Amino acid sequence: MSKAKGSRAERELFHKFWEQGFAVCRSAGSGSTTKPAPDLLAGDGEKIFAIECKSIKGTKKYFDVNEIVQLNLFANTFGAEAWLAIRFDKVGWFFIQSNNLEKSKGESLLLSLEYMRKKGFNFEELIGKYRQKKLKGHNR
Amino acid sequence: MSKAKGSRAERELFHKFWEQGFAVCRSAGSGSTTKPAPDLLAGDGEKIFAIECKSIKGTKKYFDVNEIVQLNLFANTFGAEAWLAIRFDKVGWFFIQSNNLEKSKGESLLLSLEYMRKKGFNFEELIGKYRQKKLKGHNR
Repeated sequence: MSKAKGSRAERELFHKFWEQGFAVCRSAGSGSTTKPAPDLLAGDGEKIFAIECKSIKGTKKYFDVNEIVQLNLFANTFGAEAWLAIRFDKVGWFFIQSNNLEKSKGESLLLSLEYMRKKGFNFEELIGKYRQKKLKGHNR
Repeated sequence: MSKAKGSRAERELFHKFWEQGFAVCRSAGSGSTTKPAPDLLAGDGEKIFAIECKSIKGTKKYFDVNEIVQLNLFANTFGAEAWLAIRFDKVGWFFIQSNNLEKSKGESLLLSLEYMRKKGFNFEELIGKYRQKKLKGHNR
């Protein structure tokens, strides 16, 4: 994934969350620090998503497991849910919680379109699922 | 305030929060977007601070009120407390919640060392005050 492309995908998602009533912080990145930093941190007063964005050209790609370790570390400390947002070219976005990823071997983590079609959410499902829960809660 | 200096102050604070058990996100800034973005967003699973950092050379300086409006907008949407962190040269840091600032006239907001000495907290007080509340809560 090119850096510019990853950045475009990230900005696209940034705006999607704002449109849905979330405030979103784009991280300045970990260039100047060794501290973990998710690409996006989105909150709406009830839910907080710490999100690592990935843009994939084909149908699968390997990533460094350490990225997930760092994402989880940040999310657990901050008090957020750790999610991956994966954008497949010509297909679109899939969202998956970091604890629901495919088991990986060693240092590599496989992200595949096939697995995301089975286990991932699209953006509307991600937001809708949670908003629905909220509504049910209010009706109690 | 020079940009480099503001950035140094921001990084200093970034590390202070991590040392105190917070996860901190440094915002990529609002350069590429019109959405509000605090300099830092720090959370520890209970409390979330949305922070605008200021570095001041003398004992007072005027700022654009709109910066506070934007900070409040972000904080209210995200579900965070809106705070200003002001670093006075040769004196140090003061922290003040945005709703506790000096009344301003028109578009300008005055940040003064005199006012901060009366109404502001230092970092230890900011963290300590809140941690103490937490402990009291646990003892109930």
